[in-house]
Amino acid sequence: MEMLKFNEQAQIDSVNGALALRGKINEIVDGICKEGYTNVCWLGIGGTWASSMQATVHMKEMSAIETWAENAAEYLTTGNKRIGKGTIVITSSVTGSTIEVVQAVKKAQDAGAKVLGFIDIDTTELAKMVDYEIAYSANEQLKFFMVADRFMFNNGEFADYERMYEEFEKYLAVALVEVEKKADDFGKEFAKKHWNDELHYFVGAGNQWGATYSYAMCYWEEQLWIKTKSITAPEFFHGMFEIVTRDTPVTIFVGEDAQRSLSERVVNFIPRICKNYTVIDTKDYELKGISPEFRSHISHLVMHAVNNRIDAHMEEETCHPMEIRRYYRKLNY
Amino acid sequence: MEMLKFNEQAQIDSVNGALALRGKINEIVDGICKEGYTNVCWLGIGGTWASSMQATVHMKEMSAIETWAENAAEYLTTGNKRIGKGTIVITSSVTGSTIEVVQAVKKAQDAGAKVLGFIDIDTTELAKMVDYEIAYSANEQLKFFMVADRFMFNNGEFADYERMYEEFEKYLAVALVEVEKKADDFGKEFAKKHWNDELHYFVGAGNQWGATYSYAMCYWEEQLWIKTKSITAPEFFHGMFEIVTRDTPVTIFVGEDAQRSLSERVVNFIPRICKNYTVIDTKDYELKGISPEFRSHISHLVMHAVNNRIDAHMEEETCHPMEIRRYYRKLNY
Repeated sequence: MEMLKFNEQAQIDSVNGALALRGKINEIVDGICKEGYTNVCWLGIGGTWASSMQATVHMKEMSAIETWAENAAEYLTTGNKRIGKGTIVITSSVTGSTIEVVQAVKKAQDAGAKVLGFIDIDTTELAKMVDYEIAYSANEQLKFFMVADRFMFNNGEFADYERMYEEFEKYLAVALVEVEKKADDFGKEFAKKHWNDELHYFVGAGNQWGATYSYAMCYWEEQLWIKTKSITAPEFFHGMFEIVTRDTPVTIFVGEDAQRSLSERVVNFIPRICKNYTVIDTKDYELKGISPEFRSHISHLVMHAVNNRIDAHMEEETCHPMEIRRYYRKLNY
Repeated sequence: MEMLKFNEQAQIDSVNGALALRGKINEIVDGICKEGYTNVCWLGIGGTWASSMQATVHMKEMSAIETWAENAAEYLTTGNKRIGKGTIVITSSVTGSTIEVVQAVKKAQDAGAKVLGFIDIDTTELAKMVDYEIAYSANEQLKFFMVADRFMFNNGEFADYERMYEEFEKYLAVALVEVEKKADDFGKEFAKKHWNDELHYFVGAGNQWGATYSYAMCYWEEQLWIKTKSITAPEFFHGMFEIVTRDTPVTIFVGEDAQRSLSERVVNFIPRICKNYTVIDTKDYELKGISPEFRSHISHLVMHAVNNRIDAHMEEETCHPMEIRRYYRKLNY
C-alpha cells in the first residue's frame, strides 16, 4: 500500500538540495569570519524561534562562541544591547512576511548587525533587506546547523566537520526517507490511539526541545487543533509531573545529543505513574552510512521524519485538513 | 472578615528584611566588580529557573553586560563554554538540596566561575560550597533583582538606582500587602469560577514570563494538581491560539516593563474569540509611594501578590491542601 502524503524522490531531492547550499553558506560564513565578528544571534518567532533554540543548544555543546536564540517580538520591545556592530544575526522565513521578523531585522541592522536570511521567496522585501540571502524552501534546521557548523569549524571547534558533511551528502537524504518508511506503521497506530486526546503532553530535551515545542504548538495546536503542553525533560520533574496519572497521554522525544540522559530519566520513571505514554527514540532508527558520532547532529531530523508519519495519519484519523486555520493570518490581531 | 492565609505584619517584615540584605549584596557585588568579571549567569531549575529568566529579561532591557539564564540540568549535560574564569553565577535554593543545582555549582566552580548563592539554610553543603552565601528565606526574585541592579549600577547603566531603592525601602512592603488586600475579592471570585477547570491557559511576557511559567507549573500543576499551559504573549499568536474558542479558560498577566505591549496585544484580540478570559493588569494596583518609572521593576512582585490571593481561595475551593505532593521528593526518579 502506498504511504500517505509521502513522495520519496521529492523528499530526497529536498534534503540533498539543502545540503548543496553549503558552498554558498560557507562562502558567506568564511567571509564573515575573515572580517571578524563578536557574537552569533539566532532570530525567530514561532517555528523559527524553535529552530533558533535548536541551533543554540547545538552550538553550546561544542563552542565557546557567544550565541543565543532571540525572540523577534521580545527584541522589538525589550531590545538587546549585545546586538550591535560585529553581531551576526541568522534568521529564516518561508513567506518573508512575518512582521516581527521583518521589523527585528531592521532594528538589528540599525544597531550595526549583519543579517543572514534564509528567506524562501527572494522577491520579498525581507529577502532584499538582509545582508546575505539564501532562498531555498524547507529544511530550516539543516540550513541553520550548516551555518552553525561552519562557524565552529572556522573557530577550530569541529575537527570532523568535512568528514561529517561527506557522509551527510552521501547518505542523509536516503536515511531520512528510510526512517519515514520504518515509522509509518507506528505513526498509524499512534494516530488511531491519540487522535481524540483532550490534551497531549510532549517531553523533550537538547536539540529535541525546539522540535518538541514546535511539534506540540505548530502541528497539533495550530494544524490539528488538539490541545498540548510541551515541557523540557528536566523541568518535567520540577512540578509538571504532579498532574500525570494512569491515563494522561505523554509522549517523550528521546534524541542522541548530550541531553539524552535527561529524557531517559523521564522514560525510566514514567511507567510507575502512567500507562498511556509513548517513547520515540531516534536510536531505534538505523541511518545507514552515518557514523555513530554524527547521529547526535541529526537526531532532531530523525524525530521530524517520525513525526511526519504521525501527522499524515493524524490528519486522516481526525478528518481535519492540516492546512486550515481559524485565526492565523485570517484575522487582524 | 479575616483574609485567608494572610499575615500582614509577617509579609511586611519579610519584604523589608529582604531589602535590608542590600548592604551585604552590594559589598559582594562591588568586590566582584572591582576584581573584574566577564559575564553573569543566572542558574536554576524549576522555580529558580523561572526567577533566572526574570532576572535576565530585566537586565537585557537596561544592560550591555553578557547575561543569561542557565538551566542546571542542561548545564550538567550540554555544558556551557561561556562559563569559566570571570563568570559570576548567581543561584538560589530554599532547601540547599536540589541535586541539579548542587552539581551545577560544583561544575561551574571547577570551570573557574565564582558563585553567589541565596541558600536559605546556611548549614547545608550547598551553602558551604558557594563562594558568597546569603541566607534569608523567600523573596527570591527581589534578591536576584537587587544583585542585577547593583551590577548595572556599577556598570553606569542605572542612574536612578539609589532613588529607587530609597522608595522601595520606604514603601514597597506596605504597597504589596495593599495589593493583596485589594485583590482578595477578585481572587475569591476567580477561584469560584475556575477551581474545576480541566485545563487553564496562562499568558505572559517580559519579567512576567517567569511568573507565568512558574505560576502555571509550580502552583497550579504542582500544588493544586490542575492542568495548565503557559505561553509567552508573542508566541500565543504563532500557533497556540488556534485551540482557543468561546469557553477556553485563558488568563493574561499584564505587567509594566517593555514587553507590556506584547501582552496588551493578546488582551485586545482575545474578546473576539473567547468569553472565558481574565486579565490581571498590575497597572490596576496603586503602589503608594512608588514613582511611575520604577513600577516596571516590581510588576512581577505585584502579580505575585495578586496570585497569592488566588492561591488562598483555590486551596479553599478545591479542598486540596497545597502542601501535598504525589511524586515530588516522595519517590525516587
